[in-house]
Amino acid sequence: MRRRKKKGADLKLLSYTDYVFRDNIEAMSGKWHEKFKNDNPIYIEVGTGKGQFITTLAKNNPNINFIAMEIKEEVLLHAVRKAVENNLTNIFFIWGDVQKLTDYFAEGELSRIYINFCDPWPKNRWAKRRLTHSGFLERYRKCLDSNGEIHFKTDNEKLFEFSLNEISQNGWMLKNISLNLAESDFEGNVTTEYEDKFMSMGMKIYRLEAKSIR
Amino acid sequence: MRRRKKKGADLKLLSYTDYVFRDNIEAMSGKWHEKFKNDNPIYIEVGTGKGQFITTLAKNNPNINFIAMEIKEEVLLHAVRKAVENNLTNIFFIWGDVQKLTDYFAEGELSRIYINFCDPWPKNRWAKRRLTHSGFLERYRKCLDSNGEIHFKTDNEKLFEFSLNEISQNGWMLKNISLNLAESDFEGNVTTEYEDKFMSMGMKIYRLEAKSIR
Ligand SMILES: C[S@@+](CC[C@H](N)C(=O)[O-])C[C@H]1O[C@@H](n2cnc3c(N)ncnc32)[C@H](O)[C@@H]1O
Ligand SMILES: C[S@@+](CC[C@H](N)C(=O)[O-])C[C@H]1O[C@@H](n2cnc3c(N)ncnc32)[C@H](O)[C@@H]1O
Repeated sequence: MRRRKKKGADLKLLSYTDYVFRDNIEAMSGKWHEKFKNDNPIYIEVGTGKGQFITTLAKNNPNINFIAMEIKEEVLLHAVRKAVENNLTNIFFIWGDVQKLTDYFAEGELSRIYINFCDPWPKNRWAKRRLTHSGFLERYRKCLDSNGEIHFKTDNEKLFEFSLNEISQNGWMLKNISLNLAESDFEGNVTTEYEDKFMSMGMKIYRLEAKSIR
Repeated sequence: MRRRKKKGADLKLLSYTDYVFRDNIEAMSGKWHEKFKNDNPIYIEVGTGKGQFITTLAKNNPNINFIAMEIKEEVLLHAVRKAVENNLTNIFFIWGDVQKLTDYFAEGELSRIYINFCDPWPKNRWAKRRLTHSGFLERYRKCLDSNGEIHFKTDNEKLFEFSLNEISQNGWMLKNISLNLAESDFEGNVTTEYEDKFMSMGMKIYRLEAKSIR
């Protein structure tokens, strides 16, 4: 059997033009609802990976619009395939960088931001790269509507500890915090690929929701 | 050797009249600074137990006033003895019930409230008895000055999870949260009797600080 080359993946992704945005994404700012052809709330996931989480949500919640953001093309390809296979019409994909969130979305255009198992960047000097750092929180706040929420999961205790502190101290109210998701009251959890892996290793999963109070 | 009877302990405690308040504590409301004979901030610990934590703080921080509250007389006796042995002049003891906090203290009279290893009351129907339940949080807020803080430690994951949620959702900003105190950056931790026991068993200690934003 012939191995598929990385190059092949790249070409493939570019061909899913109905699903994937990669060039001039800034032009879409303020026009996402138009693109979805409805006024349903828009939930995005940043650092989507292979997309199990967000495509499952999209399948189960036809009255919500979803957008998946991922910076690595070969990973995003898997996510897009899942949407194509399920003929999903309430999801788009952005092959792009979370750093640019406020370029891609207008003020209040989003209703929810999911962050799942993002890179922990353990060293102190890397703190700014963590997706729950205040710099990112400010970007999220700008794009979220007044009732908008952040939903965050991680297996990393230190990252979760950092995130609790950072989020509470930057004008957000925390809620539905779980220090051990498997043993919590939280119902209807949809898992990600990383989550399945960590859970099968018996690791604890941490979760929180946050709402801006500014 | 003759065993000391419970009765003996009771009598002993009552004899430490310079240190212990038990009758008509309400009359002290608004007069604690007068009693301490200075304007230093007042920090109290609720459910003090045998007093290792608060007497150590009192010894190390002569410019802070301390008050230890405990409902069980025979336990409080140990705490009082530690103060007597160290000739501490910046600490008083209340043999009383945290439920009555707002009767014992005037608005803004306190600067910090320590809650250490309080009873977890694990069943849902007992939630109101937890010392971090909103009912208690409102009492704390009334007695604390505008920069006042709650400092809370526990070994109980479920109680800590409950407390994070309850505190954040009732108008407090969380800070210095540790999900594993032994491995945290927090310096100068003073341990309690329960904490020493749990740590020697290799258990994780959780800690948080909270400041009212209302
Ligand atoms: C550890 S993986 C987790 C993937 C998925 N959320 C899961 O739980 O299975 C983190 C993902 O975030 C992506 N990522 C990292 N930084 C990013 C950025 N600045 N913008 C978009 N995606 C990013 C990585 O490429 C990677 O796929
Ligand atoms: C588990 S022990 C912890 C003692 C100490 N803080 C330590 O960490 O070693 C809890 C203490 O809180 C006291 N307590 C419980 N409810 C109380 C109340 N309503 N008012 C005052 N003290 C209370 C109990 O008598 C007990 O000594």
